[in-house]
Amino acid sequence: MRRWKCTIAYDGTYFVGYQIQPNKRTVQGELERVLATMHKEAVRVTASGRTDAGVHAHGQVIHFDSPLALSPDGWKKALNAMLPDDVTVREVEQVDDSFHARYSVIAKEYRYKVRTAVEYDVFSRHYAYHFPYPLDTEAMKQALAFVKGTYDFTSFCSAKTDMENRVRTIYEATLCATDDGLEFRWVGNGFLYNMVRILVGTMLEVGQGKRSPASIPTILAGKDRRLAGKTAPAHGLYLWKVVYDN
Amino acid sequence: MRRWKCTIAYDGTYFVGYQIQPNKRTVQGELERVLATMHKEAVRVTASGRTDAGVHAHGQVIHFDSPLALSPDGWKKALNAMLPDDVTVREVEQVDDSFHARYSVIAKEYRYKVRTAVEYDVFSRHYAYHFPYPLDTEAMKQALAFVKGTYDFTSFCSAKTDMENRVRTIYEATLCATDDGLEFRWVGNGFLYNMVRILVGTMLEVGQGKRSPASIPTILAGKDRRLAGKTAPAHGLYLWKVVYDN
Repeated sequence: MRRWKCTIAYDGTYFVGYQIQPNKRTVQGELERVLATMHKEAVRVTASGRTDAGVHAHGQVIHFDSPLALSPDGWKKALNAMLPDDVTVREVEQVDDSFHARYSVIAKEYRYKVRTAVEYDVFSRHYAYHFPYPLDTEAMKQALAFVKGTYDFTSFCSAKTDMENRVRTIYEATLCATDDGLEFRWVGNGFLYNMVRILVGTMLEVGQGKRSPASIPTILAGKDRRLAGKTAPAHGLYLWKVVYDN
Repeated sequence: MRRWKCTIAYDGTYFVGYQIQPNKRTVQGELERVLATMHKEAVRVTASGRTDAGVHAHGQVIHFDSPLALSPDGWKKALNAMLPDDVTVREVEQVDDSFHARYSVIAKEYRYKVRTAVEYDVFSRHYAYHFPYPLDTEAMKQALAFVKGTYDFTSFCSAKTDMENRVRTIYEATLCATDDGLEFRWVGNGFLYNMVRILVGTMLEVGQGKRSPASIPTILAGKDRRLAGKTAPAHGLYLWKVVYDN
C-alpha cells in the first residue's frame, strides 16, 4: 500500500459540500466513486477539512491509500479522466504513511472575493459576493489588525459548533484590491466552522461604518456569536492552500 | 406604444442559444416569458442577432414595444427581478420607432478568450477555451492584419449558411494578452454564421505554426470553408458590444 497526497480544485457551485452524504452530489463522493471504479472496491478519501455548499477550493488537499502501482502523473491523468469537469486534481505526490491530510496540517489559507462594482455581473455570480456599497478600506485594515494573533474565536464561529477549544492563531489577515472589488486573504493554523465567513461579514460592516475597528477586541472578548456580524455568503469563499511540514 | 432598447448580458452555458425554441431554455424565451407576465399577453423581443449554445453576451441588444408607462430604471428593475440569474438587463433606453435592434446595427464587437496556461482551471471551464500549447503571437498578429478589411468571408463561414452576400468588413482584429492567456477582439459591420469561431480556430493554427500568416489571403480567395481551420468552441466567445448610429 502506498499513500498518495493530492491537491485538488473544485467549483463548489453544484455540490452540497465537500463531505460525502447519501444521494447528494459531494466532492468526496465524486472522488470515492472514481477510486472505487479503479480499485473495484471502496477507497476512503481523507481531506484537510470539509467545505460547505457553494464554497470553492483552489488548493484542497486529500490523501488515500492504494495498492495500485501508478506514477504521480499516472494518478493525475487517471483521476482527471474520470472526474466531472468541476473537480480537478492539480498535483499528486507519494507521501509517507505518517502524512495525514487533516492531522498534519500546519496552516491553511482561505480567500474571500467581494465584487463591489455596482453592476450585477452574470459571470461572477457564483464566484464572488456582490456587495455594491462604498467601503472604507482603511477602517477594514485597522479591524483586520485586531484579529491577527492568537484568540478565542468563539464570537466568530457558528453557534452550532461542538468544537470545545476555540483558540486559533491568525497569522495573516489582509485586504487586496482586485479588478472589480476586493479580496480578503486569511492564513491561520486552523479555522472554526463559518469563521472566515463571519470574519468577512463583520469586516464588511466595519467597511460600511456600522461598526468601528476598535469594536473588534470587544467582540473577541465577549465570546458570543451574537456580537459579531452576519455570515458572508458561501460563494465568495475559496479554500486556497493547505500547508504541511514538507 | 413605446419602443425600448435594452443592453443585456448572459452566461450562455445553460442556454441552447439565444433564439427561442419550443421546450428549450433560450435567452429570448426567458425575456419573452417575463414580458408576457408583465403585459398579460405575448410581447415579441427582437435582438441584434442570435448567439449559439454556450456563447456568452456582455452587450447583446434587444428591443420590444410596450404600452406600459415605466421609466428606464423601472424597466431595468422589473425585468431583473423576474429574470433568472444568468441573464441580466444592464441598461434600458427609450428609442424612436425607427430603431431596430437588428436592422439599425452599424458594427458589432466579439471577443474570444483563450486560456493558454497549462493547468486545467475549473473556474474558467465555461468562460475560456483551454488551449495549452505554445503560440507564436507575432505570426497570429500578422495573420490578423490579412483579415482586416472588406472581403468575401465564405471560407470563414459555416457551409450551412444560406446567406447569399458574404462580403463583410472587419474594422479591427486584435490580440491582447490576459492573465492566463489571450483574447481576440473583432469589430466588424457584421459577422456570418460561425465566422468569429472559424477565424479564431484558423488563427490558433497559425499560432501553432500549422499555417503561415501568408496563407490567409489564399484562404479568403478560395471561398471554400474547407480551406480554413477548425471552428473554435462556443464557450470562449462573447458578443461584447453592438454599435448603433446614436
